[in-house]
Amino acid sequence: MATDRDEAVLAANEAFYRAFAQRDTAAMDALWAKDAPVACTHPGWPVLLGRDEVLTSWRGILENPAAPNIRVGDAVVHRMGDTALVFVSEVVDGSPLAATNVFVREGDAWRMTHHHAGPVTLLRTRFAGNVDPMPGRQN
Amino acid sequence: MATDRDEAVLAANEAFYRAFAQRDTAAMDALWAKDAPVACTHPGWPVLLGRDEVLTSWRGILENPAAPNIRVGDAVVHRMGDTALVFVSEVVDGSPLAATNVFVREGDAWRMTHHHAGPVTLLRTRFAGNVDPMPGRQN
Repeated sequence: MATDRDEAVLAANEAFYRAFAQRDTAAMDALWAKDAPVACTHPGWPVLLGRDEVLTSWRGILENPAAPNIRVGDAVVHRMGDTALVFVSEVVDGSPLAATNVFVREGDAWRMTHHHAGPVTLLRTRFAGNVDPMPGRQN
Repeated sequence: MATDRDEAVLAANEAFYRAFAQRDTAAMDALWAKDAPVACTHPGWPVLLGRDEVLTSWRGILENPAAPNIRVGDAVVHRMGDTALVFVSEVVDGSPLAATNVFVREGDAWRMTHHHAGPVTLLRTRFAGNVDPMPGRQN
């Protein structure tokens, strides 16, 4: 059974995908860690290190008229104290990806410190019946 | 400058790649977390969840006569208390991959809780001059 903390992590994970789907660069900027070190491995890219490099990449993606369509599901939380990993199945422009999202607790907020998405040939099976642009809460 | 803790994390990261390169299933088993939840996203695979599923996959890979050749470099540590991420460039059977390795401190040991490797079209540039089956310490 998910704990309240796991629920808070899932809410942070959903905020990330909401910012992505809505191309909301301000929300995307706000949800990345302020104190913890930040990194991001986009599909096919080498890892980007540091807040400036990571946020610049997201602005480039979200402000592009060809910003990809994303659907997500299958979120699973592995929490270890004030750090949490969320494993997510993504479908980006029709292509399946597996994502690892890392969150860290900063004050009252769970903020993203790392996103790694890479192509897969298949998704966790339970995703098949649960494809939704914004699964779970709709707030 | 790397701290002693970062050095300990890098040593754990190198132990992982040493077990991979040497096809040492016992060492691979020992280096994964005992208490923290375990997951692994192999290139092209959906995420595997739980120690049994993850270790079974590694035994399958390492015991296969066609176990891939691996070279690694570019390790960068982002440590957050008792959790640490290590970003690594891998070359597996000639193909470049970006890996995220997550370690957690359990007692005196840094143990792996997650490995995610996915294909990339290029590596961090400094890898080019630093291709080595076991970079850094040789112990």
